[in-house]
Amino acid sequence: MRPSQRQADQLRDIKIELGYAKHAEGSCLIHFGETKVLCTATVEEKVPPFIKDSGAGWVTAEYGMLPRSTHTRMSREAAQGKQTGRTQEIQRLIGRALRSVTDFSAMGERQIKVDCDVIQADGGTRTAAITGGYLALHMAFQKLKRDGIISKNPLTDFLAAISCGIINGEAVLDLDYMEDSNAIADANFVITGSGKIVEIQATAEQTPFERWEFEALLKLAEDGIKTLIELQRQVLKEAEESSSAA
Amino acid sequence: MRPSQRQADQLRDIKIELGYAKHAEGSCLIHFGETKVLCTATVEEKVPPFIKDSGAGWVTAEYGMLPRSTHTRMSREAAQGKQTGRTQEIQRLIGRALRSVTDFSAMGERQIKVDCDVIQADGGTRTAAITGGYLALHMAFQKLKRDGIISKNPLTDFLAAISCGIINGEAVLDLDYMEDSNAIADANFVITGSGKIVEIQATAEQTPFERWEFEALLKLAEDGIKTLIELQRQVLKEAEESSSAA
Amino acid sequence: MRPSQRQADQLRDIKIELGYAKHAEGSCLIHFGETKVLCTATVEEKVPPFIKDSGAGWVTAEYGMLPRSTHTRMSREAAQGKQTGRTQEIQRLIGRALRSVTDFSAMGERQIKVDCDVIQADGGTRTAAITGGYLALHMAFQKLKRDGIISKNPLTDFLAAISCGIINGEAVLDLDYMEDSNAIADANFVITGSGKIVEIQATAEQTPFERWEFEALLKLAEDGIKTLIELQRQVLKEAEESSSAA
Amino acid sequence: MRPSQRQADQLRDIKIELGYAKHAEGSCLIHFGETKVLCTATVEEKVPPFIKDSGAGWVTAEYGMLPRSTHTRMSREAAQGKQTGRTQEIQRLIGRALRSVTDFSAMGERQIKVDCDVIQADGGTRTAAITGGYLALHMAFQKLKRDGIISKNPLTDFLAAISCGIINGEAVLDLDYMEDSNAIADANFVITGSGKIVEIQATAEQTPFERWEFEALLKLAEDGIKTLIELQRQVLKEAEESSSAA
Amino acid sequence: MRPSQRQADQLRDIKIELGYAKHAEGSCLIHFGETKVLCTATVEEKVPPFIKDSGAGWVTAEYGMLPRSTHTRMSREAAQGKQTGRTQEIQRLIGRALRSVTDFSAMGERQIKVDCDVIQADGGTRTAAITGGYLALHMAFQKLKRDGIISKNPLTDFLAAISCGIINGEAVLDLDYMEDSNAIADANFVITGSGKIVEIQATAEQTPFERWEFEALLKLAEDGIKTLIELQRQVLKEAEESSSAA
Amino acid sequence: MRPSQRQADQLRDIKIELGYAKHAEGSCLIHFGETKVLCTATVEEKVPPFIKDSGAGWVTAEYGMLPRSTHTRMSREAAQGKQTGRTQEIQRLIGRALRSVTDFSAMGERQIKVDCDVIQADGGTRTAAITGGYLALHMAFQKLKRDGIISKNPLTDFLAAISCGIINGEAVLDLDYMEDSNAIADANFVITGSGKIVEIQATAEQTPFERWEFEALLKLAEDGIKTLIELQRQVLKEAEESSSAA
Repeated sequence: MRPSQRQADQLRDIKIELGYAKHAEGSCLIHFGETKVLCTATVEEKVPPFIKDSGAGWVTAEYGMLPRSTHTRMSREAAQGKQTGRTQEIQRLIGRALRSVTDFSAMGERQIKVDCDVIQADGGTRTAAITGGYLALHMAFQKLKRDGIISKNPLTDFLAAISCGIINGEAVLDLDYMEDSNAIADANFVITGSGKIVEIQATAEQTPFERWEFEALLKLAEDGIKTLIELQRQVLKEAEESSSAA
Repeated sequence: MRPSQRQADQLRDIKIELGYAKHAEGSCLIHFGETKVLCTATVEEKVPPFIKDSGAGWVTAEYGMLPRSTHTRMSREAAQGKQTGRTQEIQRLIGRALRSVTDFSAMGERQIKVDCDVIQADGGTRTAAITGGYLALHMAFQKLKRDGIISKNPLTDFLAAISCGIINGEAVLDLDYMEDSNAIADANFVITGSGKIVEIQATAEQTPFERWEFEALLKLAEDGIKTLIELQRQVLKEAEESSSAA
Repeated sequence: MRPSQRQADQLRDIKIELGYAKHAEGSCLIHFGETKVLCTATVEEKVPPFIKDSGAGWVTAEYGMLPRSTHTRMSREAAQGKQTGRTQEIQRLIGRALRSVTDFSAMGERQIKVDCDVIQADGGTRTAAITGGYLALHMAFQKLKRDGIISKNPLTDFLAAISCGIINGEAVLDLDYMEDSNAIADANFVITGSGKIVEIQATAEQTPFERWEFEALLKLAEDGIKTLIELQRQVLKEAEESSSAA
Repeated sequence: MRPSQRQADQLRDIKIELGYAKHAEGSCLIHFGETKVLCTATVEEKVPPFIKDSGAGWVTAEYGMLPRSTHTRMSREAAQGKQTGRTQEIQRLIGRALRSVTDFSAMGERQIKVDCDVIQADGGTRTAAITGGYLALHMAFQKLKRDGIISKNPLTDFLAAISCGIINGEAVLDLDYMEDSNAIADANFVITGSGKIVEIQATAEQTPFERWEFEALLKLAEDGIKTLIELQRQVLKEAEESSSAA
Repeated sequence: MRPSQRQADQLRDIKIELGYAKHAEGSCLIHFGETKVLCTATVEEKVPPFIKDSGAGWVTAEYGMLPRSTHTRMSREAAQGKQTGRTQEIQRLIGRALRSVTDFSAMGERQIKVDCDVIQADGGTRTAAITGGYLALHMAFQKLKRDGIISKNPLTDFLAAISCGIINGEAVLDLDYMEDSNAIADANFVITGSGKIVEIQATAEQTPFERWEFEALLKLAEDGIKTLIELQRQVLKEAEESSSAA
Repeated sequence: MRPSQRQADQLRDIKIELGYAKHAEGSCLIHFGETKVLCTATVEEKVPPFIKDSGAGWVTAEYGMLPRSTHTRMSREAAQGKQTGRTQEIQRLIGRALRSVTDFSAMGERQIKVDCDVIQADGGTRTAAITGGYLALHMAFQKLKRDGIISKNPLTDFLAAISCGIINGEAVLDLDYMEDSNAIADANFVITGSGKIVEIQATAEQTPFERWEFEALLKLAEDGIKTLIELQRQVLKEAEESSSAA
């Protein structure tokens, strides 16, 4: 039995507050249990040099943690004068994942920046950020469409992410912080609504692991992500209905 | 009439969620209308060199804004590699204000770091940060007391802050962003529970102002801060009662 | 009696050497007792992006201290790779103060940078910098006028600054370093030739102070600044006469 | 047929020059075709704070590219004043991989730093760095053993890495730069001598990919890495024989 | 007798591998004994602002050392976030030296960046960098000429550099690391093919030295540089013949 | 005839104000014509790690320019976040020069930091800094001796520096800014009271120069430095007499 009393294939309670940030074009506060990440999407008409005059757009992401989002306080990156390697790795991952389901030519020559800021951390912040960042991005595209700036939502598929790990010889889904600290291996998966793979990152934390163990992690992730995407569909549908009603 | 339909001497709706951050020794999410600041207090046994072996403690503060807390997105300071002058000015102000009501010898040789992070900005973030930072600090001290580490709460008085400004020739209390942008002068006041002055910062934004105008701002602030401190007393009392009950 | 044998309302010896720096468009070395600040004004035809094509100008300031201007040597900011929060706070204050008496539309689309560098520090460097920076700026505008580039001096009023503080229960004017270290409260005032307020920064260094104490500080400052502005008028008049004679 | 005329499961020419750097405790210049990476291992008696007084050791890695190792010149990171996110991601990967086969308690309280510097880049620099970094580390441990400082080589297994990708619908092994630019998906695998998985990083560069495509990449990698490890065994055996002979 | 068994006026073995780096427009790996420096020349059509629209070109240089090129490992400058004063001094010297023999108007409005990276250090890295950097630059200009982009090679003379020093009262040529550590004075000379002086840097490492000692160093350098330039002529001639043959 | 009407071998007016900075242990404001450099020496009991517990001392130097010390304003290095290569090169030169005449064992385990800040620049700032820095250092050592902390002044010789250059085919002494801009070659010499060489830096600014031209520069420098050192002796003697009289 897991410390959180969950089954091996059970997600934590997932809660999504769409539109949490009043100024952003798209936003949500997403909860994976005690992990809370605020995701906002900002539409900018200014594009990076490498797509200038291409007619196509770009999506990028930034990630941060509030200093006391963690069990013991982390140094504030702005005060340190630089982002850690971990931060950069995660924000590159989020950006890559979101771009894999975006049709750049359908979004026009503009850029969307997705900010994922961890308000409270209890394991799985990067997977919550991708899952919530997708929703913020979706809302921003819907707004551009409602405003008549683009003719269709450029997202080509749904997208969510989840972590899995091996603890005491068993593969389990959606690790919280205590589990994450004890896992011998730990993997993050990003998968689309149609079940295609966008990213796999599997790492032996202490000792190398067997191929069949990896297969077990992948299987758990495929099922968990299906549940997450079902939830995304639902909250977006509700939002769409309420904005149509308005 | 003000754009927000408030009276000249009327505060915005103030809402305080004590204990918002699960990991911190003290915390609150404070709302001044649409402005939301998350304040956390972290107890650290490690002290800065200048108080080493003095037996006394220290209180310091850091301030930040989430990139899309604002109307248009701001650059992330961690990505820029440095904190702006404005950020440094504000965090120095918060630290100074909190230290003015702390008895360092009563807190033992330890440091408390108060982090104030703006989740959403609509004017008055620094005054919300001081008012909420005081509460986070108070909770952290109460925890140290409950844990038997210190014998009394080292805070010597209550403390809150508010902004005032001159708009269309009239002095008004607790400016929101739209008002702040139109004020010819703008002042921030930090005042204690016993009505003593901790800090006054009054600035002519466009044109220098008259002494009697300044007096009007000070009067508004004194009254507004009384209300804020009454609210602080109340939420702390409720928290104390519920933790005694537990 | 004060350590310097001055009366409570007595300024230190003020000495102004206009035109100290041969390359700058305007400059002075200003002495407030043993405090010496070199102020230079540089006219630049390049303007910051936010006023581009507006037809109007801008005034900005930078502040620095030579490493051994102080009692014990300070680290060189250039070697540390960043300006301290104190430095940024002071240079923002100087720039704001000078802008409050400048008519941007009368100066054309150009920028003036006022550099205030502390050659020797003995308290009151920021107020000496504002008082001297005003003179450097005035000279630079007069030069633009003499050169036929602008038709009138864009400064709309005189401007000076002074510090006051509470020591042993008494309010005193123009603190030197020893007094500054012992003050329980300390305030800086920036006031115009017509007696209007540009900036007030009052801070409880150790313990919060009473409102009537603040009023006493403000009264001292108003009188001290009148004397400083009289001196400014005089040195500028002499300079104007000697440049007309030439 | 691949641009390089190789079969889908064929490695480039692998060449290893053990002991290339005269000052380092272990080193090799490794060639994966035209990709050349210089790997050095440095033994340091000073350890990072988190293992101080633990009696155990640590292995860490740094990665860099010479500015003109690439087709078009890259900015020098030292001149830019920071390492890119890509650089940090790669050096974290190399360090993690090497640590997964190191018995820290057998190496004593010391640290080994493995530097991997790309002399010439033609795709696959990170996998060459891991494969060559393992050899440099092995040599450094052998030297510590020969010098009587440790009693056995703390490496618990062999270790190598390879990239694979999907090009024109086919899975191919060991991508060079031209192939890498055209791959729709790209994966890096780190695997031990006993066939266990240390790290998998699979990324959809353009479009998400199918699970069976991923399986094909993994199969190719397992075979390719067997060949690399066979080569490692051989060069280490030769080195050992020649150093015994000496 | 010198530790290396060389005569006082004897160079170390000099070895030059022209065209070592496959991507660069010009390159060589130059050996001064155990010192190895990789020099590459990159042609860029983008020019620095101060020569924009002048029709003339520019040559600049950058210098770096691999962390374990040295006896004990040096910190990686990219990881430290800045180049040391020594690095900047050396790269400024290399750039200045190469520019002194370049006819900017003959190279068209483009820039050549010469990167000198120390693969292994054993004294004299800056003089090897200048001598090898000249060759890389020459090759890049020859390529521009062969490609019909410029009509003649803009280099106006040959150029090489060597170090000398005073050890045990004797002037010796081309110091290796051990000698360099023991020299009381140490000088670097950059001289052209026609025997003209480009740069002299002579420094008393421990104690000031006599004028006649300096004259002895200069004499040694003049002879040593003649030998180096003879070698440059020869390798460039061979390269030219082989590229004509091709 | 030179623009300044000086003879080829004529120094500018040299003026030395010893003890200019009231807080420093040693200081002078030195004028080489319109060039003014403020030099201060600070005694610190804290030493750099590499001399810890050696019983010997160390001397180091820092250099800076006020932003408007120059004809057109330079960026403030502290605001840019780094020192330029030129600044670092100069401060390394000053430190090396001062150390060459210091007996470290006679100064005890302490460090003296010599700060040289350019108040106004008109060519020759680095040579004025060395000549004035020597005086500040001398005063600081005399103070340590007067205070009974050391038994003799650790300076082993006098030391001064001067620049020379070739303009219109003629070698001239002590270049001002206008001459410096027009020189084809430019050299800085640091020489001791006993005529020994400490540093020579000769650079072809535009075209390489002949050996006999270099000899002419060296001859001018030797004579010019004799005059500077005579002046140093005189001001130090006067200071010593006045401090004995006191």
